[in-house]
Amino acid sequence: MTPFVAELIGTALLITLGCGVVANVILKGTKGEGSGWLVITTAWAFAVFVGVVVAGPYSGAHINPAVTIGLAVSGLFEWTDVPSYLLAQLLGAMIGAALIWIMYKDHFDITEDKGIKLGVFSTIPALRNYPSNFFSEVLGTFVLVFTVLFFTDASLLATEEVIGLGSLGALPVSLLVWGIGLSLGGTTGYAINPARDLGPRIVHAILPIKDKGSSDWAYSWVPVLGPVLGGIIAAALYLLL
Amino acid sequence: MTPFVAELIGTALLITLGCGVVANVILKGTKGEGSGWLVITTAWAFAVFVGVVVAGPYSGAHINPAVTIGLAVSGLFEWTDVPSYLLAQLLGAMIGAALIWIMYKDHFDITEDKGIKLGVFSTIPALRNYPSNFFSEVLGTFVLVFTVLFFTDASLLATEEVIGLGSLGALPVSLLVWGIGLSLGGTTGYAINPARDLGPRIVHAILPIKDKGSSDWAYSWVPVLGPVLGGIIAAALYLLL
Amino acid sequence: MTPFVAELIGTALLITLGCGVVANVILKGTKGEGSGWLVITTAWAFAVFVGVVVAGPYSGAHINPAVTIGLAVSGLFEWTDVPSYLLAQLLGAMIGAALIWIMYKDHFDITEDKGIKLGVFSTIPALRNYPSNFFSEVLGTFVLVFTVLFFTDASLLATEEVIGLGSLGALPVSLLVWGIGLSLGGTTGYAINPARDLGPRIVHAILPIKDKGSSDWAYSWVPVLGPVLGGIIAAALYLLL
Amino acid sequence: MTPFVAELIGTALLITLGCGVVANVILKGTKGEGSGWLVITTAWAFAVFVGVVVAGPYSGAHINPAVTIGLAVSGLFEWTDVPSYLLAQLLGAMIGAALIWIMYKDHFDITEDKGIKLGVFSTIPALRNYPSNFFSEVLGTFVLVFTVLFFTDASLLATEEVIGLGSLGALPVSLLVWGIGLSLGGTTGYAINPARDLGPRIVHAILPIKDKGSSDWAYSWVPVLGPVLGGIIAAALYLLL
Repeated sequence: MTPFVAELIGTALLITLGCGVVANVILKGTKGEGSGWLVITTAWAFAVFVGVVVAGPYSGAHINPAVTIGLAVSGLFEWTDVPSYLLAQLLGAMIGAALIWIMYKDHFDITEDKGIKLGVFSTIPALRNYPSNFFSEVLGTFVLVFTVLFFTDASLLATEEVIGLGSLGALPVSLLVWGIGLSLGGTTGYAINPARDLGPRIVHAILPIKDKGSSDWAYSWVPVLGPVLGGIIAAALYLLL
Repeated sequence: MTPFVAELIGTALLITLGCGVVANVILKGTKGEGSGWLVITTAWAFAVFVGVVVAGPYSGAHINPAVTIGLAVSGLFEWTDVPSYLLAQLLGAMIGAALIWIMYKDHFDITEDKGIKLGVFSTIPALRNYPSNFFSEVLGTFVLVFTVLFFTDASLLATEEVIGLGSLGALPVSLLVWGIGLSLGGTTGYAINPARDLGPRIVHAILPIKDKGSSDWAYSWVPVLGPVLGGIIAAALYLLL
Repeated sequence: MTPFVAELIGTALLITLGCGVVANVILKGTKGEGSGWLVITTAWAFAVFVGVVVAGPYSGAHINPAVTIGLAVSGLFEWTDVPSYLLAQLLGAMIGAALIWIMYKDHFDITEDKGIKLGVFSTIPALRNYPSNFFSEVLGTFVLVFTVLFFTDASLLATEEVIGLGSLGALPVSLLVWGIGLSLGGTTGYAINPARDLGPRIVHAILPIKDKGSSDWAYSWVPVLGPVLGGIIAAALYLLL
Repeated sequence: MTPFVAELIGTALLITLGCGVVANVILKGTKGEGSGWLVITTAWAFAVFVGVVVAGPYSGAHINPAVTIGLAVSGLFEWTDVPSYLLAQLLGAMIGAALIWIMYKDHFDITEDKGIKLGVFSTIPALRNYPSNFFSEVLGTFVLVFTVLFFTDASLLATEEVIGLGSLGALPVSLLVWGIGLSLGGTTGYAINPARDLGPRIVHAILPIKDKGSSDWAYSWVPVLGPVLGGIIAAALYLLL
């Protein structure tokens, strides 16, 4: 598998499972309807686990542009590889979101609320306040990228280490995302990954979803630029230390 | 232990714990009554853990016909061993389901809803739509088998690796199933394992359950053929890559 | 630390955390009041983790008479050491239960229901039916002891292995107990450990708990003899295989 | 990174995630509003995981004055290093609490209850009774520090071991804190860490929080002195054994 394919498949798995749990919890008539925040955050954690397990040995399993850019800033990743990684992540996220729409289509059809339909795809802030929402995404992504850089000095991201620990080497980043979701996801729904938010939003705009509303492009820059800035600050502080 | 016995016991433990948690959550008067989707998915994850720990060193711990067939398609398992594995898995699942009926019998007796009684044994779709339900089972099993094939290049399934990591080597597949349940279980209840659904359904048809209703054979092909197709697609994509 | 002290302290920690979570969930006015079955089973899992971590290198961390007897039956433990282990486990369980009463005393005092007060100490069946309740305890403990015997061929219980994997070597038994609680705890509350039930019941009978009711001695043999039989069957089947 | 900086950053991450989850669960209008005790305790567990991963190789990852003092009493840590550790922990806790106020400011502003606002920062007992609350903090911290001392004979705290196991070496203490929160957090909300309570309380007193109430200094000694005493008793018992 090339790194491009690995990032694409890894991110597709991440978003299939990630948008999948949101569909399960917020759409009407599902088995998990109304099962709450813990279900959402737990599943996102294992979504990360699955994406990292599959992509890890082939691409280092960034599956997140903020990680890719943060690593490049900190000198642990080549800038020349950044564009293909970002493209693979965006395309993978779009595939995952589309699969979830197909799978949960009957439940989309019986859900009336337009905001809920968009919420399966992209994050929506609890209280809309752009500077504050932006700060939330910066802080959440800072904690993500900064801590990832300390996983045995970033070696989780190296092929050898992932194999060395077996697939359990993907567990630390999964637990980290679990914690961030529970603690720092309360305001904006923790995109902390530009591809996670932008890819599904594009899919929401394209797909013929029944009675869909706005794709809320006015908010779309927050979960893209916030995570990127958070990743850069994390890399800068890591280099400083 | 022969592989046949290992698969039988491993699947029996899987279904004892798996159907057990459904009984605990949906039957009347139990300690866990109404405790919800997170309880169900968490327990199925550990049910997989237990089945894999016990069967792992002796049979590779498939405990799922979709895994057996997927591995055979990808060339990692001998086709000649497939029939005995499938038989062991089906028999094991039937034993597990029967044990749960004995254990929870008093709670079955005070539960009136016939659908709930069947639900302890077999999956029932949230919204009945065969093509859509079939797609759900294909997708869920695809994610299962595809990711399993990437567990350190399928080495989890090899005897040596399971011993190498100790019993923790069974944890990755457990976390994977946890995630699939939370994210992709919302439509059909994620059989993702033909033996898990068919074995208990046969037991439901046979046992003298008080006031039982239909065993819903009209739906029974979905959680059998869907997972098999999902496993085959996963193996094919793995080979392609 | 002698094995006797290790079993005593390990079981005391097990019961401090185990009865502690029941107090937190069912007594009035606590932070965790009404937080449900998942909280109880999760905490019991980590209670096992803590007890095994502390006692492991010194006694093999049985902290459960059913494990001690099961191992003795299967030839993996000396019969001459059984009595001192059982005594240590019972005393440890009594200490743990007493500590929880002291800690949660104000909450005991404002809880009126006598059954709830007993429930902090000992298990109470959801539906009282001695043969059925007995079967539940046999089955739950069978799954516990049988699976423990397969932890890398019981090596979890050996001093060297526990150190080899670090404290994470105590995780498999913790996940196993988590699963058993979720799946097989729905009928009797899963004592699956004679010391866990009998020790606290004795403490309930002795302590000057405000407005306490019966210690329900009529039921007390079920969570003692059921687990013992379950452990013996597990060991016998293990030997047979 | 110097040990001082490591303790400061590790504790800042601990409190960012720890106070973050409380904000998410108890403030108005958040994504996790009312999601309960399991969410709070799970997130604190991963908050510990993150703090230990980052600080571990540089300072031993105490991130808790009760651990620092307990280790010093047991002879595993130099007394001369204690003051700088305590200062770093207190400052780190203050930074974390301040970040959470900034992030959740809009939710603070629409929450009316003054006690809830304080509760994001510091612990508040369920039933106020100083001797009993003090006992709770002593017992909870005793279990924490005593068990930490048994993590492969305290080697988790040594640089080499943390790297040896990879970042998963931080998992045992995380599971331990998860269990303590679920089981022993029901009375006082388990500070079990003087810096965790005092640092945020100082920040609560200083910050211009809208319509804030008392910082409840009358209670503030309980979650400082209780954990310290619990840590000392744990170290003393460990030495005795």
